[in-house]
Amino acid sequence: MKDSAVLLIDCPDQKGLVARVSTLLYNQGANILHADQHQDHELGLFFMRVEWALANGDGHSFDLVSFKSAFTALAADLHMNWQLRTRSPKPRVALFCSQYLHCIADLLERHRMGELDAEIPLIVSNHRAVEPMAAFYGIPFVHTAVAAATTDAVRTVNRIATEQEQLKLLREKGIDLVVLARYMQILTPAFVAEYPSAIINVHHSFLPAFIGARPYHAAHARGVKLIGATSHYVTEVLDDGPIIEQDVARISHRDQVDDLVARGRDLERVVLSRAVRWHIENRILCYGNKTVVFD
Amino acid sequence: MKDSAVLLIDCPDQKGLVARVSTLLYNQGANILHADQHQDHELGLFFMRVEWALANGDGHSFDLVSFKSAFTALAADLHMNWQLRTRSPKPRVALFCSQYLHCIADLLERHRMGELDAEIPLIVSNHRAVEPMAAFYGIPFVHTAVAAATTDAVRTVNRIATEQEQLKLLREKGIDLVVLARYMQILTPAFVAEYPSAIINVHHSFLPAFIGARPYHAAHARGVKLIGATSHYVTEVLDDGPIIEQDVARISHRDQVDDLVARGRDLERVVLSRAVRWHIENRILCYGNKTVVFD
Amino acid sequence: MKDSAVLLIDCPDQKGLVARVSTLLYNQGANILHADQHQDHELGLFFMRVEWALANGDGHSFDLVSFKSAFTALAADLHMNWQLRTRSPKPRVALFCSQYLHCIADLLERHRMGELDAEIPLIVSNHRAVEPMAAFYGIPFVHTAVAAATTDAVRTVNRIATEQEQLKLLREKGIDLVVLARYMQILTPAFVAEYPSAIINVHHSFLPAFIGARPYHAAHARGVKLIGATSHYVTEVLDDGPIIEQDVARISHRDQVDDLVARGRDLERVVLSRAVRWHIENRILCYGNKTVVFD
Amino acid sequence: MKDSAVLLIDCPDQKGLVARVSTLLYNQGANILHADQHQDHELGLFFMRVEWALANGDGHSFDLVSFKSAFTALAADLHMNWQLRTRSPKPRVALFCSQYLHCIADLLERHRMGELDAEIPLIVSNHRAVEPMAAFYGIPFVHTAVAAATTDAVRTVNRIATEQEQLKLLREKGIDLVVLARYMQILTPAFVAEYPSAIINVHHSFLPAFIGARPYHAAHARGVKLIGATSHYVTEVLDDGPIIEQDVARISHRDQVDDLVARGRDLERVVLSRAVRWHIENRILCYGNKTVVFD
Repeated sequence: MKDSAVLLIDCPDQKGLVARVSTLLYNQGANILHADQHQDHELGLFFMRVEWALANGDGHSFDLVSFKSAFTALAADLHMNWQLRTRSPKPRVALFCSQYLHCIADLLERHRMGELDAEIPLIVSNHRAVEPMAAFYGIPFVHTAVAAATTDAVRTVNRIATEQEQLKLLREKGIDLVVLARYMQILTPAFVAEYPSAIINVHHSFLPAFIGARPYHAAHARGVKLIGATSHYVTEVLDDGPIIEQDVARISHRDQVDDLVARGRDLERVVLSRAVRWHIENRILCYGNKTVVFD
Repeated sequence: MKDSAVLLIDCPDQKGLVARVSTLLYNQGANILHADQHQDHELGLFFMRVEWALANGDGHSFDLVSFKSAFTALAADLHMNWQLRTRSPKPRVALFCSQYLHCIADLLERHRMGELDAEIPLIVSNHRAVEPMAAFYGIPFVHTAVAAATTDAVRTVNRIATEQEQLKLLREKGIDLVVLARYMQILTPAFVAEYPSAIINVHHSFLPAFIGARPYHAAHARGVKLIGATSHYVTEVLDDGPIIEQDVARISHRDQVDDLVARGRDLERVVLSRAVRWHIENRILCYGNKTVVFD
Repeated sequence: MKDSAVLLIDCPDQKGLVARVSTLLYNQGANILHADQHQDHELGLFFMRVEWALANGDGHSFDLVSFKSAFTALAADLHMNWQLRTRSPKPRVALFCSQYLHCIADLLERHRMGELDAEIPLIVSNHRAVEPMAAFYGIPFVHTAVAAATTDAVRTVNRIATEQEQLKLLREKGIDLVVLARYMQILTPAFVAEYPSAIINVHHSFLPAFIGARPYHAAHARGVKLIGATSHYVTEVLDDGPIIEQDVARISHRDQVDDLVARGRDLERVVLSRAVRWHIENRILCYGNKTVVFD
Repeated sequence: MKDSAVLLIDCPDQKGLVARVSTLLYNQGANILHADQHQDHELGLFFMRVEWALANGDGHSFDLVSFKSAFTALAADLHMNWQLRTRSPKPRVALFCSQYLHCIADLLERHRMGELDAEIPLIVSNHRAVEPMAAFYGIPFVHTAVAAATTDAVRTVNRIATEQEQLKLLREKGIDLVVLARYMQILTPAFVAEYPSAIINVHHSFLPAFIGARPYHAAHARGVKLIGATSHYVTEVLDDGPIIEQDVARISHRDQVDDLVARGRDLERVVLSRAVRWHIENRILCYGNKTVVFD
């Protein structure tokens, strides 16, 4: 895949936004690969994603520094929030997991096959089950268990210590995105605040149904006819962050909780891997507690 | 469709249930059309649905009276809950609606085409919008509005009076099943108690997400990526009865509340019509707050 | 719904297309409601749909004549194929059907509810089954049966005579779009040529599987696990025109042909109604034998 | 999972089949775990699957030898085709693949997680790409390439020689089921005849659409709106064997062939792994060119 730049914009809607952005790109000689806009008429907001080649066919490369300078002025004028990202260097992703490995196995295999255009320099787990898999894929693994404690106060201290250790690892590895691939520890707000809109979790229910622990048990108890899974950005509030992707599968009265768990694994793999890919490809814009996912 | 009998059974699981029921049917000469069983191993329960022809090919008809007598003894011996139903006479269904007519229009058209093997001798609404449609399909329509009131006490009295009027209509028409096809009035427990497991409602969300009013607004606010609809039996607790069927449709950030409402109409039609058909065909067994739907 | 204009463009891809079109619209004061582009990199083609309000909030109306004049010059310069359409006057749609009425009933009910922003001044059928329904919805109905014939030559003559009668009706009613809602007669190339990319058919299979007659029988014989339906533009070649929409439903070994037919009706309704709505909303561009459907 | 026996029956339909089979099982003391029947009324056929525990809770084990003897007589009397299988010893599965590893990686990971109740003592490939993966999962790998040839006659000889080598391996390993996990070589009828209803293939289209090579290219050329994948038993006729499972995914005009290939991988994984699991769990009965899949 050749190198390209992606510009993500959100701002108050007004006339001429597309004209001004696309004209600037045209004047700078950009060869646009994809462009998409969205207006939220209720909120009066405008969203745009535009991707263009950094190496043109004629041997010239796009002058990103010059463009950024010109665009910064335009963006200030139009009150834009914006992000300018390039495919290269690739985003650096850390995978966190616990004892269930289906999601991380799926992500590692997709990465090996080239579906995920990212570096994965770190796997973190509070269990050791993933260690051989990490070795097979050649990815450094760090075991970070919270030390046992007999009181809540000590438990909290230990948990914060573990998170500090994890954050140190993330900084050392230059991590841009943390993926919780069935990581069964709840992150503190302090941890979450270090990676705003950059921690993706998979929850094994169709949110907002069955928030919290043991959602397949809850789904079975309620007698639903479809089960679901949801990938979302992690915020301070449990299972409440912006939803990135959801999917469902049909079940029947024949399915016991174990069957739901097995069927659900396929959903979890799919919704998590899509979310990671879309994030890596700079397709997601968060606004309020929602996402725009450009296709 | 030729006449047939359906036996629905639920009881504590034990060895020999299928053998004893099927041998009894065989000895009575039944020509079985469909049979299905289900065991809930967690709860130790057994469920069975068996359907057989009442007119055999050889000109003899099945002796239902004799079978019922023999089966009653067997069922008592095995502690069975059971229902024995025949296709003829057809079940009698009343349709309730308010101002949104997509569900009732769908049910009426399916009935006209022969998809629903039932009589529909009554349409009830607190609005008059459905009146021409009822006339077109040749079905008696009764308008039953709750009289206006200035205090809660009077409002409650008026509401009960209206329900009494509706219940009188249902009795006069010999109604077996009440279908709430987007009927926007909440029924009192007293009304519900008259039709246990015989009032089907459609809720315009993927229950248990977005219980209560304005679920599409709530879905839009939460930023879900799929919307749903649910058909369920009505119990005393709002939107909490046994779920019969659910379905979902994919939406995107482009969809505003109006789009969700429009997309949702297709889901509502489908989940409600399936629930009504399955009920009419005696495919549904309720246990606890769940359903077994035999296919 | 307020009046708006839609511009559909396809042309060879080149730099600056979005900039030039959006700048022209901006300079003319357009308030853009939706815009979408697509590049087919394999074929080097560019597609665009842009919709803007004709009445601005400030009391001024957009000068469509002036825009059209300026755009015509630009389009010639850039070798664009283009269509400029307005919501008002509404497109005029004729519905054709035979004896199966589920699709036409669905379209008529959606039209009554306001889902389809079009006029329906004509229903044509080679059967009389639809006549009461046409009367109920207040739409003129014309019965156009092909006269019986004992030789192929006479049959062809009669068929052409019937089509001439139908084309005369279409012209008199000013029809823009012909919808074949399970119309079981094959149109001649001469008829099709009168309405290029303006005749929509629904085929009761997942094309290109099961082309031709009795697709549910063929699906049952092949033992597929999903059945489908397809809406497409009609071209000279049977069941081969550009596909607009497809959907599928899961079946099992329990389903006989009759069950497939019943399940398929829901698919047919959905894929046909979506295709009609998208056509009416000017969301579809044909190129080669394919469609771009802007969402 | 405790040991159990599964009986699969197909025979001409007649009265009393369920009664006689279930009474025999009851008399032998079977604790039935699941039972399901199906009648094909068109063909006058009866299908049954019944599974029961081999170790009862009371410490007694089911006398399979005695049952088999009694059942053999009954089956002869009723003209039954039947198979009696036990969970232990586990079925032995060989996986064949070529250079695309997503399906085999998925099966191996599901096997490691315990989703597939089988032994996998052999991986065969005409490429070496899978070798490290086979080593990681600890499964013997054999590379069996067809020797290069300059004439068709020699090519045929070489191909037969390679198949003989593969068949020898299968015999030595006691293989019960061959899974073609994107194995890109066409098997000869002689090979297929050695494993009737015991070779499962995945085809990357919604069969019978796009039979043969490069189905994603064909799907893209036809402009379909959904792509599919199909798992099926291999017969002498290419892509024509009994279909076990199918699934589809929605695509749009934005998707190029590469996108279809990527989207399709998820479908292929799912339909193949389901087919393998159902086969291993003795849920599939073939009749004619179709399958009954008991759930």
